[in-house]
Order: sequence, then C-alpha cells, then structure tokens
Amino acid sequence: MLKKRYLLTPGPTPVPPECLLAMAKPIIHHRTKQFRAYIAEATKGLQEVFQTKNPVITLASSGTGAMESAVCNLLSKDDKVLTVSGGKFGERWAEICKAYGVNVKIIEVEWGKSVDPAVIKSELEVDSEIKAVFTTLCETSTGVKTDIKAIAEMTKNHQAIQVTDAISALGAEEIKMDDWGIDVVVTGSQKGLMMPPGLAFIALSDKAWKLAEVSDLPKYYFNLTKANKSLANSDTPWTPAVNLIIGLVEALNIITSEGIENVLKRHELLAKATREAVKAIGLGLLAPESPSCVVTAVKLPETIDGVELVKKLRDKYDVWVAGGQAQLKGKIIRIAHLGYMNKFDTIVGISALEMALKEIGYEFELGAGIKKAEEILTG
Amino acid sequence: MLKKRYLLTPGPTPVPPECLLAMAKPIIHHRTKQFRAYIAEATKGLQEVFQTKNPVITLASSGTGAMESAVCNLLSKDDKVLTVSGGKFGERWAEICKAYGVNVKIIEVEWGKSVDPAVIKSELEVDSEIKAVFTTLCETSTGVKTDIKAIAEMTKNHQAIQVTDAISALGAEEIKMDDWGIDVVVTGSQKGLMMPPGLAFIALSDKAWKLAEVSDLPKYYFNLTKANKSLANSDTPWTPAVNLIIGLVEALNIITSEGIENVLKRHELLAKATREAVKAIGLGLLAPESPSCVVTAVKLPETIDGVELVKKLRDKYDVWVAGGQAQLKGKIIRIAHLGYMNKFDTIVGISALEMALKEIGYEFELGAGIKKAEEILTG
Repeated sequence: MLKKRYLLTPGPTPVPPECLLAMAKPIIHHRTKQFRAYIAEATKGLQEVFQTKNPVITLASSGTGAMESAVCNLLSKDDKVLTVSGGKFGERWAEICKAYGVNVKIIEVEWGKSVDPAVIKSELEVDSEIKAVFTTLCETSTGVKTDIKAIAEMTKNHQAIQVTDAISALGAEEIKMDDWGIDVVVTGSQKGLMMPPGLAFIALSDKAWKLAEVSDLPKYYFNLTKANKSLANSDTPWTPAVNLIIGLVEALNIITSEGIENVLKRHELLAKATREAVKAIGLGLLAPESPSCVVTAVKLPETIDGVELVKKLRDKYDVWVAGGQAQLKGKIIRIAHLGYMNKFDTIVGISALEMALKEIGYEFELGAGIKKAEEILTG
Repeated sequence: MLKKRYLLTPGPTPVPPECLLAMAKPIIHHRTKQFRAYIAEATKGLQEVFQTKNPVITLASSGTGAMESAVCNLLSKDDKVLTVSGGKFGERWAEICKAYGVNVKIIEVEWGKSVDPAVIKSELEVDSEIKAVFTTLCETSTGVKTDIKAIAEMTKNHQAIQVTDAISALGAEEIKMDDWGIDVVVTGSQKGLMMPPGLAFIALSDKAWKLAEVSDLPKYYFNLTKANKSLANSDTPWTPAVNLIIGLVEALNIITSEGIENVLKRHELLAKATREAVKAIGLGLLAPESPSCVVTAVKLPETIDGVELVKKLRDKYDVWVAGGQAQLKGKIIRIAHLGYMNKFDTIVGISALEMALKEIGYEFELGAGIKKAEEILTG
C-alpha cells in the first residue's frame, strides 16, 4: 500500500512546499542589498508573529542557542534567577543558568501541571534581588501551557525580567509580547514557523536591553548587542543561514496572509478536537487543566506500551507522533497540532490512533474519536 | 542581455543543484533511524575530507560558532594562548579568547604575509605554559596560506594544542589532520563543502579531548563533550539543521567521488591560472609568497578604485568577487576558486575582470590574462 508521511510531531513540523522550493533556489551572497531585503522582510513578519515592536534577532542555531543567548547576554555571575521545572524544557533553563554560574532557584511542578503564578509572585515578594524569571509557554514534554500573561503581570513592578521560552508555542499559542509586558521571547524555526530546524529567534524589551548593558557573562557568537546593531542595517555579525532565511520569508508570508489571529484559532480548534476525540476513545489527558494548543499528551492505560504504539503508528501507518520523555517514557504519546496543519491532519492522526489501538486489542468503539472530532471541526 | 550569476566570492560559494534539490525534499524527523543514517554518512564523508579518524562534530551555527566552541571547551580562565593577527580571521581568535577571559599573546603579522613558524617555535620555547596555538589555514581577508604542517610539528612536543581555523580552506587547501598532528580543525558549510551557510564542523585529537576534561569555561549549546557523546549514536544533543545535513551528504558524495586529492589539485590549478592571468594583465598580488588555493587577492594600482571595480563586475556582468576589508578596502579585489568551480568559472572571472578594466580605462592588452590562464588550464 502506498504510504504518505504525516508528521504530527511537535517539531520538526511539515514544511510548506513553497518554503522548500524557495530554499532550493541558487544561493546568493549575504552581504548584498538583495539579501538584506530578505532579512528586513523576515524581521517585519517575525515582529507581527511575536506581536512586538522590538527588533527580533535571527540566529543560526537551534532554539537552545537562543535560550543560551538570553542567559549569557542578560545576566551576570551569581545573579539570582527563578526557573520552573515541570518538564524537560523548563529544566533546560536551569541547566543553562548553572553552566554560567548563575544562582538558580527552581520551582518544582508536577509533570503535567502548570506553575501557579501566585507561587512566582510570592517568590518575587520574598526576594527583591531576583533578576529574571524563566518560563516555558508550552512545555513540549507534557503539553502544558503556562499562564505567561499572569506571570508577566507580576514582573512588571519588580526589577526581574520575564523570559519566555516560546520555542514550540509561537504561532500556535497566544502571546502578545508588548501588550503583556514580556521582556524576552525565544523561539525556533521548526515549530509554528513551519520551517526546517536551523534558525532561532529572540526579541528583547527595553528593560531586558538595560540588563544587557551590564551583563558580565562571556559571549561571542551569541552576542545580542552586536547582532542588534547589525540588524539595524538588516545585516548579521556572522554569516547567516541564507537559504533558511529565504524560506522563512515564504513561511511568514503564509502565516501573515492567514492572519496570526486565525492561525491561533486554527491551532485551538485542532487541539480541542484532538482532546475530545481522545476522551471519546476512552484515553486520558496528561494535562486536562492547562492543555496547550501545540501538542496533546495522551495518557495511556497500563495495558498499552506507549513505545510500541508510537512505533506501530510510524511503521505501519507512517503517522509520526512523539512518545513520552524521561519519567513519562512509554506512558504517553504526544500528538502535535503545530504549524502547517489543517483539519484533515488531525483527522488522520486520530484515525491512525484508532486503527492502531484496535489492532493491539484495546477495547473501544471504532470511529468514536473521529465522530467527536468531526462534530467539533464542523462546529 | 540575459545575465547569469557567477559567484566567485570566498563564501558563500555556488551550491550544486543536487544539494539544492536534496534540501527541497519534505522534512523528516531527526530522532529517527533514517536521519541517523544521514548523520553517519555525513560524518564518514567529513572524516575523509578532514583526513582524520577523529569524530567530526556537526553544529548548527556559522563557522564562528565552531571557533567559539574550540575556545570554551578546551581552555580555562586565565590560560595562556597564542594567536596570529595578520587579517580579520586571525584577529577573531583573539577576540573570542578575550571574551572568555583567556590570556592572549598576539603575534602580529603584516597583512598579506604569512606567520613564520619559527616565531611560534620561539614563543613556545620561551613560555612552557602556553595551552594553545590558534592559527588560520587560509586567512580569507588576504588570501594568505599558513604553514600549518610546520606549526603542528612544533606543538607536538609541547603541552600546547594546535587549533586550525580551516573555515575557508577545508576542501581547497591540503590539510591532513592526523598525519600532521593537528589537534583541532574547524570549518563551515558554505566554503569548500559547497553548501549554504548554517552548519559548522569541528574535530578534536585525543590531546585536545584531554583539555576538554578540565576546561572550566561556561558552555551549553556548544558543549562538545555532549555533542560527541550523541555522535557516537549518530545523534545530536539539540535539534540539528535537518535539511542542511541532508544536502551535505550530497555535497560530500560529490567531493569523495571526485576524490579529495583531485579536488585539491583542481583548486591549485584554478588558483595558479588566476594568479598568472592577473600578472599578465599587469596587476599585482597581495600575497605572492604564500598564496592560498582558496582566494586570490589582487592588488590594484592607485588609479583604480576597488570598491567601484567590484560594483561594476557585479552590476554589469553579474560576476561576484569580494573587495578588500578594513585597511585593504578599495585596494584589492578577491577572486575565489572555492568549492563547486571548474576551469570555466576561472575563465569567466578573468574575462569579466579584463572587460571591466578596459571600460574604466586601465591600459593593458585585452585577452592577455585569458591567454595565460588558458596556457595553464590546458597544461
């Protein structure tokens, strides 16, 4: 049987053919008016998606590189910061800070739960020396959404900046950098921005740039002050990833043509349809209280081995979902709704899940999930 | 008149259509057997080009990122190192080291000249505490080649490691990492490797890995120990630049099919033809004593404005060469022989130069350069 690949993983996500073809065009030189026009256009599109007037800096790195750039450009040795550990990516903030000798206070949260903004509030009240609060808009390892808006509200009148890892969430989950008063937003290319991996992005508020002026941590490749100076001329300090940026311009055109509000509504709808379908099949949700529109973590009964299920979906149906990480390995599967996806991508995902579950002997009414999803998707 | 673009700049260099088309294929997930096979194949090809048995680590960054990774993984605060400053890229080593609080002794060399290995020898003899000697195989800003083999000979019996920036030179200039005893080789994708920018590469000798064990400088994204551990499973710690790596496999296939020795001979021939043609036109060479096979820096008489000449070549002929940087601005043009280039790319470059020179009133026998080049290219 002819197979077609359906990539429902939370990154990389499917890349529109328009972007692939733009990237296949003959290479051009980067120190040219022609390429600077691409940077200028990409930056404008990124500002629209970030919902900010701040410059958005493009780095040639994975998202982790942009996370590191936030740490090494804004902090100084022994600075105190808060991080939230409720999954693999929240933990990464703490790891990066520790690598630079930054003093980290970790707020522990159960995997699958969202941090209570009130906890952050009281930490900030107790310690006025905290310089930064690091958060994760969508914790991809659990599918949990964090209430960034509420947290930003609390840092507004505190010296601390609010730094958001929106790597998997930008373009899928609402985030209004300027309106909400977020100081730093970080993302990568291979998620909601629908591009292959290789680019990362970061935007800083004026409050954050002030910290950059006094930061004493070492930096060179990720020097954001230097990058920002170049960006004023639509340029970069180091050689940029030329063809990825050219593809990105196409991706941003697709996003801004649909309109960022519509893009977010689409993600919300697909996520809701997936959650309800999963429940109709009789499976659980890892994060029923604060689910993201990025990825849905499906809790499996003990009789089902999640590793095997992911394999079956992949090898038999060519439907690619993610399994669980660390302590969730084998216990969940994660179905993304991220990027270049429409209703039928969700339908395919649920249908493949139903067929695979049937085959391994899980008892439920075949079609129950699809029925529920269709009700929502036509609603 | 229909124009075709001829990219004779020392990076980015032309990308073969095979690579562009491979990159335009639908994206695949990176945590898969299928993608790990690409990493394994790319690594094997890279080892062939690096002429090493050491693992070659692929980073998602520009070449500068790989340079920084050498510094922050191998050194510790206040370590003493030697760098050579005879152009923009030699200076970069010193800048990166200083950013990390490393103690740099700079050997100053006139731009256009190559460092005398004897000077490095005496520096090493005077100071046994030196931990690393940073060099640049081809100093792209001047077209000068450094005698890395001789320098590596001197670090062999010293505690210092020999670190080579081969960003513009790998795949164009001979470098035998293992045979010559070089400890660290760094390169990027958009030069001799014929790919768009976005990837960087680094290989370390056992002697260098020993330094990595004790290094106390901060690192996270560029942590090579972590990257090396992942590479043992053909994997990466962070999301790799998937489609660039898939394109790279094609590029390496092209290189290894031609054979690395033949690739180097081709670069040598094109460089020689360019140099002799330039002399036949009556122009000078910036680096007559130690010219590289990467790029030829052509010295212009005072009556010719190099900035204008570069512009004319570009705007009228669509032939892209580089101008001079810093103190050489306006005084030289740089014609590359780098990567996906054959005899006729060199012929086109010289022909365009002749036509442009004629137009601006420079006196010489039209065709004299081409005649000389043809003699060499048929020889």
